[in-house]
This record gives sequence, structure tokens and C-alpha cells, in this order.
Amino acid sequence: MTITLSSPLDMHIHFRQDAMLDLVAPLSALHFAGGVIMPNLIPPVNSVDRLLWYRGEIDRALAGAAFEPYMTLFFRDYSEEELIAAKPHIIGIKLYPAGATTNSDSGVREITAMNHVFAMMEHHGIPLLVHGETHGFVMDREREFCEVYRYLATTFPRLQITMEHITTADAVSLLDEFENLRATVTPHHLMITLDDVVGGLMNPHLFCKPIAKRPEDREALLQAALRAHPKLMLGSDSAPHPLDKKECPGCAAGVFTAPIQLPLLADLFDRHDSLHNLQAFVSDNARRLYGVQPPERIVTLERSPMTIPDSYGPVVPMWAGRTIPWSVVS
Amino acid sequence: MTITLSSPLDMHIHFRQDAMLDLVAPLSALHFAGGVIMPNLIPPVNSVDRLLWYRGEIDRALAGAAFEPYMTLFFRDYSEEELIAAKPHIIGIKLYPAGATTNSDSGVREITAMNHVFAMMEHHGIPLLVHGETHGFVMDREREFCEVYRYLATTFPRLQITMEHITTADAVSLLDEFENLRATVTPHHLMITLDDVVGGLMNPHLFCKPIAKRPEDREALLQAALRAHPKLMLGSDSAPHPLDKKECPGCAAGVFTAPIQLPLLADLFDRHDSLHNLQAFVSDNARRLYGVQPPERIVTLERSPMTIPDSYGPVVPMWAGRTIPWSVVS
Repeated sequence: MTITLSSPLDMHIHFRQDAMLDLVAPLSALHFAGGVIMPNLIPPVNSVDRLLWYRGEIDRALAGAAFEPYMTLFFRDYSEEELIAAKPHIIGIKLYPAGATTNSDSGVREITAMNHVFAMMEHHGIPLLVHGETHGFVMDREREFCEVYRYLATTFPRLQITMEHITTADAVSLLDEFENLRATVTPHHLMITLDDVVGGLMNPHLFCKPIAKRPEDREALLQAALRAHPKLMLGSDSAPHPLDKKECPGCAAGVFTAPIQLPLLADLFDRHDSLHNLQAFVSDNARRLYGVQPPERIVTLERSPMTIPDSYGPVVPMWAGRTIPWSVVS
Repeated sequence: MTITLSSPLDMHIHFRQDAMLDLVAPLSALHFAGGVIMPNLIPPVNSVDRLLWYRGEIDRALAGAAFEPYMTLFFRDYSEEELIAAKPHIIGIKLYPAGATTNSDSGVREITAMNHVFAMMEHHGIPLLVHGETHGFVMDREREFCEVYRYLATTFPRLQITMEHITTADAVSLLDEFENLRATVTPHHLMITLDDVVGGLMNPHLFCKPIAKRPEDREALLQAALRAHPKLMLGSDSAPHPLDKKECPGCAAGVFTAPIQLPLLADLFDRHDSLHNLQAFVSDNARRLYGVQPPERIVTLERSPMTIPDSYGPVVPMWAGRTIPWSVVS
């Protein structure tokens, strides 16, 4: 059995910089026509100058591959002039609550103190992308943050807000509650729960932020993805760390899936008789919600087994060494 | 400031075997007058012959230290003759639900199928020690198992049942619900929550079974310990694994605290103005509940800082390298 996908888009990727960028950008370009590039470098991508520098770095790493990097700025107290200058270069601005995840120390501490920026973004039609976690107990952080999503969606009704890498049934239900909320979801949050991280032996390669949640959360996410909920997009949150930052006393958060996510998703959608919805989930929803037109690219997958590599350079992918039933053939 | 403790008892320890036994048994004997030795070796300690062999191994490793190892058998379908033969050598029989933790594959799959063994243990006055987790979602396993505790406590009202290493407010509340239930609790479950394991960077050295739970669970455990709830005993569940089984893709469950738990507890009880209850929590409750009389041993602690070693041989302890305010002086 074979399927074709037209211009898959990964609406949430970490490309990092330097040697890691050189490693992972081409791996995303293998199967994707484009993707949304996260700005949490050290220091963050929070000026047009730095954005253009980073775009140049990415273009260099892609070495001509037909992959469109949709750039983002790291949220801060931008002036209107800065927003106007940035708009042609970005797909949106990414907001991190301070300290919530990798390299987010310079994030926002008080949401309402930034209302003037949200208002300008709404006025100028710049989407807001949000890492939605409070500083509460790890299993409650996204659920608690739903109050912030409600506040933002209500206060700025024309601001397009993406709830990034949602992990809970609570966040799924918000999709239908507010017209201006949409979301990305990762392949791994459709497949694992906290049980896979710490329920048997502890697996650092499945440790990510937000942490995988309860079975009923995964089920809500999965059902929304399988029916290609019109406001839900694939966003891998593929987040490479070298092995020595994962198998150690202070393991960094991030699951690396960039080069394996389409076979993983084809298998998942196949097992649930939902392959007919995969195109919408991996591309069409994102094109419609963001109004983007990626490079033309046809990716063909077939139901023939592949074994996930043990590593890509120093990076261990999700489910390294496991054989899965689907593979990309071209 | 100085306190003295009389014959501290660690009512739940893993001594392992061979080189690990030689390493950790003397570390427990440094500060404790005795402890309950868990039987989950490979193969398990599930016959009197193997029990006597293991006792000999422990005595050899202790090399004359004044430490009483209270032995346990691994629960299985024992005959009455076996129970009668074992009774003089054991403090109780440890039940593991199959597969729930390290080396528990040969544990029990159906509790009620073992009712005849529980009835004989009740008749002969042999305590039942239980690893109380179902095979459900990792955060729910102990709460779900409370139904099994209720069943056992009600069906066998004279069977003395110890809920080992409790981690939830639900289990604490059972202590007051059934006369024949008592419990052990670890120092680490009085101090950490799931946030310390996966809320920031992931820490394999705080990964254990049962997993640390929610803040409200820790608070219920802490309040019961600080007032030396008469049915609650210190049991460290100190569980050594070599470094290469902790900082790896399949990290083993277990926190090593044997040689540092008294300073940790002195600090914790001191900070909560509860030092007057420490003796009951670390010894008197266990002596009364089990009717044991350990070797005389006076341990003196003072409020002077100690730095937790980076490792004991190949084993990394909890909070390695951290300086804590109390230390053992003799």
C-alpha cells in the first residue's frame, strides 16, 4: 500500500545553530516542504537583524533544498516600528513564559503587562505562537495555562493564537471554544503518555516539555488528529540534544523526530483507518490557517518496514532501533 | 544543636547481593541498628534455604557490625509447612504485584487466588508487606491499589499488613481507616514530587517506583511523618543501582539514601519544629508495630553541615554534591 502527501509542513521545529543546525535542517528538508522555525537560541532571535542572520544560517545549512523556513521572533516588548519591520520576514511571534523550557529564561513573566504588544500584533495581523505552560506542578501546567489562552482569545478576538504542542484534553476542547485559537500537536504526544517516560524504565529520549500526559489526554489529542480537526496542525517540536545532554543527571527536554515523523504518522493513521485525513493534518490545515503556499513537493510512503536509526550524529531519535511498518520511498 | 537517636531502624532496604551487598550493607550499618531486607533478588528469596543463604551473605557483608537484618520472604503460594518453618527466620513476607518494580517478574498476578496463603499468614501471625501498585497509569497505581488494601484489611482483619513506601494522600488516609494497616515511607517521598524528577531537567537519580507524586501527596506524607503518626515507620527503600544503569536510555528505578537519610530527616524535622518526633518515626513506631527489640545503638547528629558524596563506589546517592545542614557525629 502506498500514499502520497503533497508538501508536508512541520509547523514547530527546533533547528538550533552551528553544527546542530547543519545536522538537523537537512533532515527536516528530506520529507518536508517547509516548517516553522523556533527562535529560542542563546541569545534568542528577538530582532530583525538577528532574524535575518538566522535565516541566512538556515539557508546555508539547507544548501538549496526546497524547504521554506517560516521564521519566528522571540516575543518581547516590541515597538510598533519593530513589528512593522519584522512582519514581512516572519510567520508569527513565539511567546515563552520565562523559564518554561529550553532556553526560555528571557521569556515573559507577566502576560497582561504585554497587552499593548498583543494589541499591535492583532492590528497588524501577526500571529502569536505560545508555549502554554504555567510554573505549576508539571502535570498541571498546560491545564492551568488554559486560563491565559481564554484571556488572550477573549481580549484580542482578532489575534490569531497558536497553542503550540498541546498535550491535554483541556487544550483540545479550547479549539472549539474560541474561533481565534488553533494548535499544533507533536507525533509523540499522539503516541505516548507519562507511562512511556517514567512508567517502566525511565526513558530520557521521550522526555520533553510539555511532558507527556495521561491516557485520556493522549486519546483526546489522537482523536482530534485522526479526524484532522480543521484547527489542528502537525508540529513536531523536534528538539535535538546531543546524547551527553540526554543520558546524564540533568537530562535536557526534547524528543527528536524530524526525519521519522511521516512514517510514524502514516502507521498511526493507517492503524486507525484514517489515512484519508493525513494530508489535511500534515499540510492543508496549516496552509489554510496561516495562508501560506509552500514549495510543491510530493512525498510517497508505503507500508514497508523501516528501522529507526540508532542515532543521527550525536542525536538519538525517538524509538531508536525500533522497526515501524511504514517508510518514505521518495 | 545536637540530638541523639536510639537504635534507628530502616524498615525497607534493598541490600542486593555480591559486590553491591558488600558495598551497601555496611553503609546501612553505619547509622542503623537494624532494617527490613527486601527479597527481590534474581532469583527471588522464596524458600527457607535461600533465605538462610542470603542471611549468611548479609552477615558476611556486615562483618560483625551491630546491625540486625530483619529478613523477608518473597511472596508465593507457600504451604502451611513452609510458613511454619520460615516464621522464626522472618519479620514478614513481601508481596509484589507481578512486574511492578525491579526484579518483581515472579510476583503475584491475582490477589484473591492467594487468599488461602493470606489466611495461613493471619493464623500464624506472619505480617504481609506489600508493594502496592496496580498496572495502571503511573500516577494512579497506588491510589488504584488502595482497593486491594481495603479488601485485604477487611477480609483478613488480624493479618498485619504494611503498605510499603507509600506516596499518596490516599494511602495516608487508609492508616486511620483500618486497624491492621500500617505503612513505611521513604525520606525522598517526604521531600520531592514529580516536579523534582521531570519538572525541570530530568533527574534519573530521583527516579523510583512508586514514582514521586503530587505536592498535595507529599504534604500529606510529610504531615503524618512530622507528627510521627503511630502507624507510620521510616523505610528508606534505599535501592542502589550502578551509574551505568541510571544514566542511560533505560534508567532503573531506585533512589539511594542509606547513608544520608538520618541527616536529611534531622534537617527536615528541624525545619518543621518536629525534632521531638524523630525518635518515634525512625525507631519507636517500628519496634512497637513489629514487636522487635533491636541492638542498643545511640546515634548523635548535630546541626553542622555535611556535603553529600558524589558517589559511593558506582552508586550515586540522592542529591549528590549538595550540602545539607545536619550531619551524624557518632
